[in-house]
Amino acid sequence: MKVKGQPYRTIWPGADGASVEIIDQTRLPHDFAVARLRTAEDAAHAIRAMLVRGAPLIGATAAYGIWLALRVDASDASLRNAGSMLLATRPTAVNLRWAVERVTAWLSPLPPALRAAAAFERAAEICDEDVGINRAIGAAGLAIIRGLAARKPPGGAVNVLTHCNAGWLATVDVGTATAPIYAAHDEGLPIHVWVDETRPRNQGASLTAWELLNHGVRHTVISDNAGGHLMQHGQVDMVIVGTDRTTATGDVCNKIGTYLKALAARDNGVPFYAAVPSPSIDWRVRDGLREIPIENRSEREVTHLSGRLPDGTVATVALTPEGSGAANPAFDVTPARLVTGLITERGVAEASEAGLGRLFPDYQRPDPHE
Amino acid sequence: MKVKGQPYRTIWPGADGASVEIIDQTRLPHDFAVARLRTAEDAAHAIRAMLVRGAPLIGATAAYGIWLALRVDASDASLRNAGSMLLATRPTAVNLRWAVERVTAWLSPLPPALRAAAAFERAAEICDEDVGINRAIGAAGLAIIRGLAARKPPGGAVNVLTHCNAGWLATVDVGTATAPIYAAHDEGLPIHVWVDETRPRNQGASLTAWELLNHGVRHTVISDNAGGHLMQHGQVDMVIVGTDRTTATGDVCNKIGTYLKALAARDNGVPFYAAVPSPSIDWRVRDGLREIPIENRSEREVTHLSGRLPDGTVATVALTPEGSGAANPAFDVTPARLVTGLITERGVAEASEAGLGRLFPDYQRPDPHE
Repeated sequence: MKVKGQPYRTIWPGADGASVEIIDQTRLPHDFAVARLRTAEDAAHAIRAMLVRGAPLIGATAAYGIWLALRVDASDASLRNAGSMLLATRPTAVNLRWAVERVTAWLSPLPPALRAAAAFERAAEICDEDVGINRAIGAAGLAIIRGLAARKPPGGAVNVLTHCNAGWLATVDVGTATAPIYAAHDEGLPIHVWVDETRPRNQGASLTAWELLNHGVRHTVISDNAGGHLMQHGQVDMVIVGTDRTTATGDVCNKIGTYLKALAARDNGVPFYAAVPSPSIDWRVRDGLREIPIENRSEREVTHLSGRLPDGTVATVALTPEGSGAANPAFDVTPARLVTGLITERGVAEASEAGLGRLFPDYQRPDPHE
Repeated sequence: MKVKGQPYRTIWPGADGASVEIIDQTRLPHDFAVARLRTAEDAAHAIRAMLVRGAPLIGATAAYGIWLALRVDASDASLRNAGSMLLATRPTAVNLRWAVERVTAWLSPLPPALRAAAAFERAAEICDEDVGINRAIGAAGLAIIRGLAARKPPGGAVNVLTHCNAGWLATVDVGTATAPIYAAHDEGLPIHVWVDETRPRNQGASLTAWELLNHGVRHTVISDNAGGHLMQHGQVDMVIVGTDRTTATGDVCNKIGTYLKALAARDNGVPFYAAVPSPSIDWRVRDGLREIPIENRSEREVTHLSGRLPDGTVATVALTPEGSGAANPAFDVTPARLVTGLITERGVAEASEAGLGRLFPDYQRPDPHE
């Protein structure tokens, strides 16, 4: 998507042929800065410290991370070590495992001399595939938005609420939850987005707002507390969120707080969708609440917050009294029963094993008796 | 309650006999500062700018504000003007109206020469009454906590989640939602409080955490997004919130986001209580969702946040990109159907007209055909 008129992806190979460049998302919305990753360790750090975040982009970064490792040492041990280092960075998003396992399975049989070039190709392919998936999600979601727009008075905007950032910054480009929004906007449908700020890291207030602002999509930032009230008063037509991992049965694991919005949507008859690229589906997991590991992040993300001082510099301030501790679970699981539909690259699935099975009959599911 | 070992209320008459002193709550938790109100305008400003906040404390401050006006001019016009100025400061909390109407009704028949002294007495009486009510709420809520504690393994803490600050800082002393918590703590029951930070103004992270820390009650600050996840995993035994206005039918209007916690509590079988002093009950309102005016506050409360820099000074930082707007509804309404019970000074009522009617048969309710 465009930044100040210039088209960007979130990750791309460096012109030097020996590095990968990324947008450093920890500095948005205050600074637009590009960071260079030269080693697999750099890639792991970028994921862990959230210079890159979002399930699809984490997967793409890990794929390039393996390439960076193999450039230096293409042995089996190097491939194994890079994979396990990258896998250990974030426990919840399944795309990370998907990307690492996929690249590793492709490279293992190759002679070491061919591995680095093949890894680079595979990483680039994963990136292009992500963009293609997201455009297909956009088309599928657009049909839903068109249906809502048809029921509005002439010129009335469709109000979409989204949580966290499942925008182009969370992917290689286009985004997942934002793909239908951008598609509707580009088609000229009046659309307005309620942007949950998404404490504690504020990816909504800092990233989603920045994306929508740059693309010219009408939006309003709200505290995470406000969505239920807006739904009670008919001000939300649909919710679209992303996912870090969706189970084979349609449970949606996503940024902490998603579950609360799903409950409010159900209570007010507002349709609640998750945008789910197939690499985010964990076909091995059936009970999201019991089986998906939830990352607990630093309490400092709750007790402190960064922002822009009046002089334009960025500062970190403490919010809590010294001596009060905090807890910081980063994700929650929305049970399938609260989900109206899963918007995938193959169309909209019912949030159930049968619904996903109909769209993805070819996907390998583990034997339940295994 | 105590601040660094010294007992305080949130509001008290100045030693000069011509002013009222308050704790300036906009400076907590970083600075403990006392502010002096000399005029009714000072009192209105303190309410509007939230140096004092919390429905009961707003009522008490307004009562003293009328005294400050009458000290200078005890005419009917002065009484009327002070009342309407104070009433206009915040639209949602009903205690404000309750206090202003009560004091005005008491003073109007008196000769002007006696009014100032009578206003002072009435204001002091409202303060003492608030403390008495809160202690009674504490006793009623303590019985519920004792019941939960009895079902815990020996030494296991009862985990209470609270939203915003309905603590002693929101009242004259003791608090409403915190009254049962302090009572349990003082009795030696193991208790632990999940403190919702409560964006956008962070009254949980700044005020509730500060109160509990000063009183030595175990607590953990969480983002407003986290409560649902904690309930899904059995980590919350009960929710207690305050209220700015509760209808005659048991709908609970409280800080924005309360409704989301009530939905999560219902979905997970966690009991959800509101601590409701009778001056917070609006006997004239039957449908909270349709009839209670919801204050929309400045978007700057969403886009900016204040905190403590490493050098100890307090700074305000911007969170959103320049150009993104925000919406800031300050309260929401939790329908009575989601409320397990209303903890009042007369005991725990079912959240319904019948439930409240049984405890408050003497309260004047308007004729529905009026």
